[in-house]
Amino acid sequence: MDIRSYLTDKTAAVDAALDRLLPPAKSAPRAIHEAMRYSVFAGGKRLRPVICLAAAEACGGTTAAAMAAACAVEMLHTYSLVHDDLPCMDDDDLRRGRPTCHKVYGEGMAVLCGDALLTHAFATLAQIQSNKRYGVREYLAELAFAGGSTRLIGGQVMDLQGEGNTLTKRELVRIHQAKTAALLTSSLRLGAMTANATPAKLAALTKFGLALGLAFQVIDDILDVTQTTEVLGKTAGKDQAVAKATYPGLVGLDASRREARRLTRNALAALEPFRAKGARLREIAGYLLMREY
Amino acid sequence: MDIRSYLTDKTAAVDAALDRLLPPAKSAPRAIHEAMRYSVFAGGKRLRPVICLAAAEACGGTTAAAMAAACAVEMLHTYSLVHDDLPCMDDDDLRRGRPTCHKVYGEGMAVLCGDALLTHAFATLAQIQSNKRYGVREYLAELAFAGGSTRLIGGQVMDLQGEGNTLTKRELVRIHQAKTAALLTSSLRLGAMTANATPAKLAALTKFGLALGLAFQVIDDILDVTQTTEVLGKTAGKDQAVAKATYPGLVGLDASRREARRLTRNALAALEPFRAKGARLREIAGYLLMREY
Repeated sequence: MDIRSYLTDKTAAVDAALDRLLPPAKSAPRAIHEAMRYSVFAGGKRLRPVICLAAAEACGGTTAAAMAAACAVEMLHTYSLVHDDLPCMDDDDLRRGRPTCHKVYGEGMAVLCGDALLTHAFATLAQIQSNKRYGVREYLAELAFAGGSTRLIGGQVMDLQGEGNTLTKRELVRIHQAKTAALLTSSLRLGAMTANATPAKLAALTKFGLALGLAFQVIDDILDVTQTTEVLGKTAGKDQAVAKATYPGLVGLDASRREARRLTRNALAALEPFRAKGARLREIAGYLLMREY
Repeated sequence: MDIRSYLTDKTAAVDAALDRLLPPAKSAPRAIHEAMRYSVFAGGKRLRPVICLAAAEACGGTTAAAMAAACAVEMLHTYSLVHDDLPCMDDDDLRRGRPTCHKVYGEGMAVLCGDALLTHAFATLAQIQSNKRYGVREYLAELAFAGGSTRLIGGQVMDLQGEGNTLTKRELVRIHQAKTAALLTSSLRLGAMTANATPAKLAALTKFGLALGLAFQVIDDILDVTQTTEVLGKTAGKDQAVAKATYPGLVGLDASRREARRLTRNALAALEPFRAKGARLREIAGYLLMREY
């Protein structure tokens, strides 16, 4: 199966599982469940759950065993977008080409919707079967770390504090590591854990995830400068407009493109211990780099 | 030990454990960790963690085994207050006599602070030791249910939607059950689970918690009408000012007082299976009812 078919296939499987694992739209109170589903089914790329599933396969596991972990990661990712879009945060009206949660349901409901998605992400971890090395305790610790105050939330804090200030490249890298790379890395690790992966495999995936996450964020920054709003599905040039530090802003477009390629090479090198079994993860990394930036 | 000494003693132990279990104030990014600690150490009554510990004792367990569960519940409770106080929600400037989180740290940081407390509440569950009947899977499912979109968050949704509308007594009871009684009940159940309690004991505590939670909320409603801002530590008469439905508003003050006493009697009856071991829980219920309303 070529990589595009693989991604289409896994994305559909993730969507079906999310539909099954989220509270029904008609359960009371309906407004919150509608808002949760509106936000989750808003045309996301499902990058995090798909790499979670691919990591499970790379470690000899199955999609079935990894699916609850994959969905938990996507719910957590979606909550962070819903809160990040709020007027008191990034104040975004568009996300993935559609009005953001608070534009449709109001600010109060968007706060609660994010809270509910975060809570349900953790609830979903309780669905994962234990194996010899890992149980719910390990899944919970992993996701709470990636989503916690020193990683995902910490990155948003640094982002919030950095707006309008001049950041160094080092500070910007720290924000990207915390905001993006940490959750990508945990997506991989959670998938691997459902496959009973050795600690050495987890360490290799951690290296892969951190490099891939940084590459992904550098590319996003480049796209924000070079693409139109229509293509992005969100307001283009927004980072510049709010004087937010970006890679291209700090080091220029050419150097940013070189950095994205360098990081992807590092990511691919980290996959060497997986040999042939790392093929899908390699393809995904290549696919992300081939986005036209 | 009399009930006041018991409460003082347990509250101090909970405060010390919270200090140990929360991220250090000086860990980066400092702003979020300061905001988390500002909100948690704001003079709360620690009712939920204390009844968690008391439930563990009533089931033959120890404070030490129940402490992480008790702290997780308090972190989750605090997150819900921080988000509830936001301008787009209840818009409160004062909480427990001090400026609310967003008044001190700004709205964006208050959203993130709540998110971080919620995430850390779940992270803290991973610290609980397993016993014969219960492990992290059960603790996680319990807390996520009580804090989820059909209970705690669902109650806030109903609250948000109910403002300015005329609610029936039945609708108001549903909001109180979801917003207050569910988390009190889970506090008791989590404590009992750390003591390896039988399902019958959990069922009895569930009855106790639901009745106690409703009694507690009815009393809070009464106090909002009858007490001054100074005594309450929050803006008095606020519920009336925003036309929020309250027990006294629907059935009058006298009927509300009778209802509070009736619910407390039901709560006490639910404790009969615990015989002498239920003494502390009985005292706590009595203590809550003896608040001057």
